[in-house]
Amino acid sequence: MTNLRIPGPTPVPPDVLEAGARPMIDHRGRVFGEILNRVTDRLKYFFQTKNDVFLLTASGTGGMEAAVVNTLSPGDRVLVVSIGAFGDRFANIAEAYGAQVTRLNFEWGTAADPEEVRKALAADPSIKAVLVTHNETSTGVTNPLADIARVVRETDKLLLVDAVSSLGSLPFYTDDWGIDFAVTASQKGWKVPPGLAMVSVSQRAWDAFAKAKMPRFSFDVGKAKDYLERSQTPWTPPVSVVFALDYALEGLEREGLENIYARHQRIGELTRRGVKNLGLELLADERFASNTVTAVKIPEGVEVKALRNLVEDEYDTVLAGGQGKFQGKIFRIGHLGAVNDEDIRSCLDVLAKALPRVGYAIPAGRSGG
Amino acid sequence: MTNLRIPGPTPVPPDVLEAGARPMIDHRGRVFGEILNRVTDRLKYFFQTKNDVFLLTASGTGGMEAAVVNTLSPGDRVLVVSIGAFGDRFANIAEAYGAQVTRLNFEWGTAADPEEVRKALAADPSIKAVLVTHNETSTGVTNPLADIARVVRETDKLLLVDAVSSLGSLPFYTDDWGIDFAVTASQKGWKVPPGLAMVSVSQRAWDAFAKAKMPRFSFDVGKAKDYLERSQTPWTPPVSVVFALDYALEGLEREGLENIYARHQRIGELTRRGVKNLGLELLADERFASNTVTAVKIPEGVEVKALRNLVEDEYDTVLAGGQGKFQGKIFRIGHLGAVNDEDIRSCLDVLAKALPRVGYAIPAGRSGG
Repeated sequence: MTNLRIPGPTPVPPDVLEAGARPMIDHRGRVFGEILNRVTDRLKYFFQTKNDVFLLTASGTGGMEAAVVNTLSPGDRVLVVSIGAFGDRFANIAEAYGAQVTRLNFEWGTAADPEEVRKALAADPSIKAVLVTHNETSTGVTNPLADIARVVRETDKLLLVDAVSSLGSLPFYTDDWGIDFAVTASQKGWKVPPGLAMVSVSQRAWDAFAKAKMPRFSFDVGKAKDYLERSQTPWTPPVSVVFALDYALEGLEREGLENIYARHQRIGELTRRGVKNLGLELLADERFASNTVTAVKIPEGVEVKALRNLVEDEYDTVLAGGQGKFQGKIFRIGHLGAVNDEDIRSCLDVLAKALPRVGYAIPAGRSGG
Repeated sequence: MTNLRIPGPTPVPPDVLEAGARPMIDHRGRVFGEILNRVTDRLKYFFQTKNDVFLLTASGTGGMEAAVVNTLSPGDRVLVVSIGAFGDRFANIAEAYGAQVTRLNFEWGTAADPEEVRKALAADPSIKAVLVTHNETSTGVTNPLADIARVVRETDKLLLVDAVSSLGSLPFYTDDWGIDFAVTASQKGWKVPPGLAMVSVSQRAWDAFAKAKMPRFSFDVGKAKDYLERSQTPWTPPVSVVFALDYALEGLEREGLENIYARHQRIGELTRRGVKNLGLELLADERFASNTVTAVKIPEGVEVKALRNLVEDEYDTVLAGGQGKFQGKIFRIGHLGAVNDEDIRSCLDVLAKALPRVGYAIPAGRSGG
């Protein structure tokens, strides 16, 4: 089977695929209602929250859009903390809906500095919300969200978090950290096909929702709440993806949160060690290296595209390229969800074989293993 | 197997479910790119269009939202022709985004009168767009869209069409009729699980898009167009649903458009004849009765909920209830997509058995068959 080493969609185990292939049912019927309630309850465990949790028929980006349009009004000042392409996207969404965005950008490959967030908030008391990426998929960096949240929670500002590629894989404590709107998506650590965004909404976010004037319709969490009281979604949900999520969550719950976090940490370390053993350089500041995705600087003289095509065509291994300004400068190895040590060893082994064929001589004595 | 007789999600044949359960792949890779291009090309045949066609990660409602936000600006005057719950929804979406909506409402169960559309357009030359439902799922009525389109095409106004429950099942000619933005969704006649909206965009709609100021991000068709030029979607698509659609379209293409339309017409007639044979009354004006869904007035003294629960619990048949102001007053039989004569006969047979048990005496000599 293909070694799908991109940071989402992640590999879906055969039993989850099978669960997603159950015969179609009425999305407004009792059976689906039971599934929806069970999935919602289970997600609260993974979000570590007592807040409302909703499923949206959306990509992760749609979920980020939901965070913005449900809590803000045009003209609101927001601080967007960006360390890469997805942080920039969060800012672009807020601007598209008329927010006044202050961008606090950090160099790609580094994490955000909570002290800089504190300064930015102090510099403009009119800021209403802080938008931040937890795990920046484009650079393989995990922000110190607990510390950033602590700074934001010294104020009454909203904290909207893109946790698309972290929640369910990396430690995330919605209530303890005081996250007002958290967003994840089915195709990441959940081992489920794409099509669903999952979001949580705090009381502070509901208070903001009551006054928020950005236009919204299909992503309106107020409608989601009304319908969930009847065990339904307002619009037709991606039923097959919900089937798959229901099944996958059962397995993840059995494994337990702390074990899931430990598994991702072990796999992340294995990946980074292997990459460095090949003489390659990580993009990320290692103190904040992500345990779901590793970005690797492409060695001089090697073309990312040539490497990716070669490993796909001849070694059945799929790597991700760079995004935005890092296109052609890095490749990325996804290691979240259904991935084990053997998948990573195999990927490193493939790199050891393929890199010399595209112009990179692995330093003597290095092997990747 | 359950006789799923709701107007969507429709039954998904086992081979389509299996196609949707293919192993996950890279949504930015070459294999997915080939699938995306093939699906897009095939959809153009079903839309009968040379316009751009895009897949959106969305419910049908999200697709309707895309029609509005991509072509209009806040303050634009629009005429919404409504004959039921989905027409009202189209108006609500436009209002949510700040359009000035004139509602041309027709009694539920009747079709829109093209002459009234002409009058409404003549009465307010500032109207920029006409929003209309092709097939009103809440009442089982198909609007005379060709005639309505002819009236709109005497002007330069945009014509945005909710074809969610008609396209791919009922005759629909995007280019011949001059439809500027048509919306359908995977869980209808396509025999595919929900999760995808499919939309077409005419040159007139693109001209409007260039000036449209409603905020949008994940449903932005401009971004969809940019990415489709690289055989990608801007955000992660519901890959499994695309697999299923790719497979299902192959079968539908083999069957051919005219045969698909004839099949739905035959099944629609069979349903209506059977319902009337039970002594029941159709909600729809029969001249405009839908060939994808039939709404049946609930006989006096019978509770819709009791009937639906009984047929589900004891006869493994799922009927839809009424929507909006028709909740509790009608039940609906879906007959689009993967449904054959035997499914309908079985459903009618179940009704003949169940109705007397919930308080309706079938008139002597009637049987449903």
